[in-house]
Amino acid sequence: MVQSLSRSPLAPARFPDMPVIKGVRFAAIGAGVKYQGRTDVMLAQMDPGTTVAGVFTRSSTRSAPVLDCQSKLNGDSKDGAAILVNSGNSNAFTGHIGQTSVAEITAAVADLTGLPEPRVFTASTGVIGEPLPHDRIIAKISELKDGLSETRIEDAALAIMTTDTYAKGASAQVVIDGQTVSIAGIAKGSGMIAPDMATMLVYIFTDARLEQAALQDLLATICNRTFNCITVDSDTSTSDSLMLCATGASGVNVKGEEAFAAALEAIMLDLSHQVVRDGEGATKFVEIQITGAVTDADAKVHGLSIANSPLVKTAFAGEDPNWGRVVMAIGKSGATADRDLLSISFGDLLVAEKGWVSPSYREEDAAALMKQDEITLKVDLGLGTGRATVWTCDLTHGYISINADYRS
Amino acid sequence: MVQSLSRSPLAPARFPDMPVIKGVRFAAIGAGVKYQGRTDVMLAQMDPGTTVAGVFTRSSTRSAPVLDCQSKLNGDSKDGAAILVNSGNSNAFTGHIGQTSVAEITAAVADLTGLPEPRVFTASTGVIGEPLPHDRIIAKISELKDGLSETRIEDAALAIMTTDTYAKGASAQVVIDGQTVSIAGIAKGSGMIAPDMATMLVYIFTDARLEQAALQDLLATICNRTFNCITVDSDTSTSDSLMLCATGASGVNVKGEEAFAAALEAIMLDLSHQVVRDGEGATKFVEIQITGAVTDADAKVHGLSIANSPLVKTAFAGEDPNWGRVVMAIGKSGATADRDLLSISFGDLLVAEKGWVSPSYREEDAAALMKQDEITLKVDLGLGTGRATVWTCDLTHGYISINADYRS
Repeated sequence: MVQSLSRSPLAPARFPDMPVIKGVRFAAIGAGVKYQGRTDVMLAQMDPGTTVAGVFTRSSTRSAPVLDCQSKLNGDSKDGAAILVNSGNSNAFTGHIGQTSVAEITAAVADLTGLPEPRVFTASTGVIGEPLPHDRIIAKISELKDGLSETRIEDAALAIMTTDTYAKGASAQVVIDGQTVSIAGIAKGSGMIAPDMATMLVYIFTDARLEQAALQDLLATICNRTFNCITVDSDTSTSDSLMLCATGASGVNVKGEEAFAAALEAIMLDLSHQVVRDGEGATKFVEIQITGAVTDADAKVHGLSIANSPLVKTAFAGEDPNWGRVVMAIGKSGATADRDLLSISFGDLLVAEKGWVSPSYREEDAAALMKQDEITLKVDLGLGTGRATVWTCDLTHGYISINADYRS
Repeated sequence: MVQSLSRSPLAPARFPDMPVIKGVRFAAIGAGVKYQGRTDVMLAQMDPGTTVAGVFTRSSTRSAPVLDCQSKLNGDSKDGAAILVNSGNSNAFTGHIGQTSVAEITAAVADLTGLPEPRVFTASTGVIGEPLPHDRIIAKISELKDGLSETRIEDAALAIMTTDTYAKGASAQVVIDGQTVSIAGIAKGSGMIAPDMATMLVYIFTDARLEQAALQDLLATICNRTFNCITVDSDTSTSDSLMLCATGASGVNVKGEEAFAAALEAIMLDLSHQVVRDGEGATKFVEIQITGAVTDADAKVHGLSIANSPLVKTAFAGEDPNWGRVVMAIGKSGATADRDLLSISFGDLLVAEKGWVSPSYREEDAAALMKQDEITLKVDLGLGTGRATVWTCDLTHGYISINADYRS
């Protein structure tokens, strides 16, 4: 079931130009896992010396490939590494057969690339509960390997799409000690989850050299401010995976340089926003800035309560500056709030202050602002210095159509 | 903004016949708070000796009338009591002016009925953030009082509707020590929340005699198995109120009789189901039975995670037996689960067992079952004896239309 979805109105104009990441090569191929007439498997192979970090879904029903990847992050970086991803079937809730599929694919990739099995990572995204036809994938690995190229990262991004309406990429270059290192990432996802448990998958590559522990720490920290701050529909995939591979092929050691972390964060923020912009049925990109909370954690709870509220999301869809629903979402979040200290703004327009509508508020100003494609909602709780920013999209007939109107 | 909504396809055929509750009289009137051409204020007056119990929203942004009611539950039952409810304006997020409105209405009701102010309860439901035009209500109280009648409970149920598509009532009679006591309740609500913060309000009356502490305990306990187990859209109102008034006018003392508790629970379950059946845009009534959890609390967490998942709810709307989305919702709930011990059934049809699709499962059987208006989803976690049942409806284009297509 892949409908022909038209490109999101919030999509960027085109896939960005991406720098070559030394030490990584990409390939993509059509294996017919489920979809016909398109690519559905990507392979990325990294040179010896590559360290790999990963952050994965915390779902208690996570998929076989996720469990396998989580066990392998601390492998020996002297060896190279490979990542193989298929779309069309998530190999989730497939019992022991699912583990067998992962093992067979891993063995085949290891055999053809000469890598040890603990350095082969896999991911699967698509329909769940059906056995993964891994033989179709294995039959194509030799051809995939022959197609590996430093410049095929866009092909890789296209092969992992499910209900995505565009391929997602972002990159940066940073000068450290007079030498340039590059970072490039790709992502797929049309919500925290999309029909048939399609998934958010993100792969980022750099030719900088970092120890695995430092790489993991950097990835987890920035993930909390980027991918863990987006939501399309509050549903969490069984397969969400974010991996960062550092090949070291630039010869540049990164040891806590702020410029590298900032460039990586910019890429992760860009990719996370691209996922929201491709949210199922999305017509509005909404940034929610929470300030004045008791703690940063409280601020994030309030932000996500607003971002996940069906009534707030349908108000955005209806271009209705319905700040009452924002008050409701704060009230139900469970984090500390005082009704009579709340201030709410849409963009720079102060809507409510001290627990009531602002004297300067004019409904027609807010209605005009709500017609924009990109809207910032600001909430100040008036309690402390805790802050957080989260991103979401609106909830429209398009979401219902994608998820209810067609049988899978 | 009240659109002309057609009656829910899940509605009962008509408002039920209700017994007279000795010691309570009802009236309703049109005060033009917001709506025109319909009633929008109800008054219920109870005789001296009435005890009153209440359960209210835990929202941190709850409304002025809710805060006022919460402070009054332990008043002296030697006095009578009154409840005045208006629709069209929720008097929420209205700052100190909101408290003034409550005080003025309370004083006017007390003045005309001869009740002390601490025995006058109010509630408001409708648009939020606008000052309640309490003068319009106060101007009608004398006429309301003159219209009080033991038989006007349906009129009261009609007056408190907002986006409800039908008035909701349920009743029971119980014989205790050879004497009959009656219980009757009304409710409004078209979701945990409806457009413009419309609300779930429930008022139940009995002519049995109970101490306030016993009444409160009974109400809170049963609420956790009924109203706290329903969800339409996961959003929680700032005004949700559930009150139970025992007039004692039957002369029958109730002291822990199981028959009375069972009758009360049946009424609360009936009314809570009627709210779900009037869920915005609902076309399916879904019962979710969770068994085999580590604890009852875990079971409820899993049940509500499934019931609130937009992807599960759109699957029901699409008549798609998409059990993968059920697995996803269990996985993200945060409560304990083991993927490889899960069993899932739609009605009596076993869909998945031990972490994978059942060998006996045939997609066409499940698809046929999903066409029913009322569907039971059963999940066994295979871990312990914890159980819970929750109720919800599907998520359809109707929900989006009600909440996004019209500006408030």
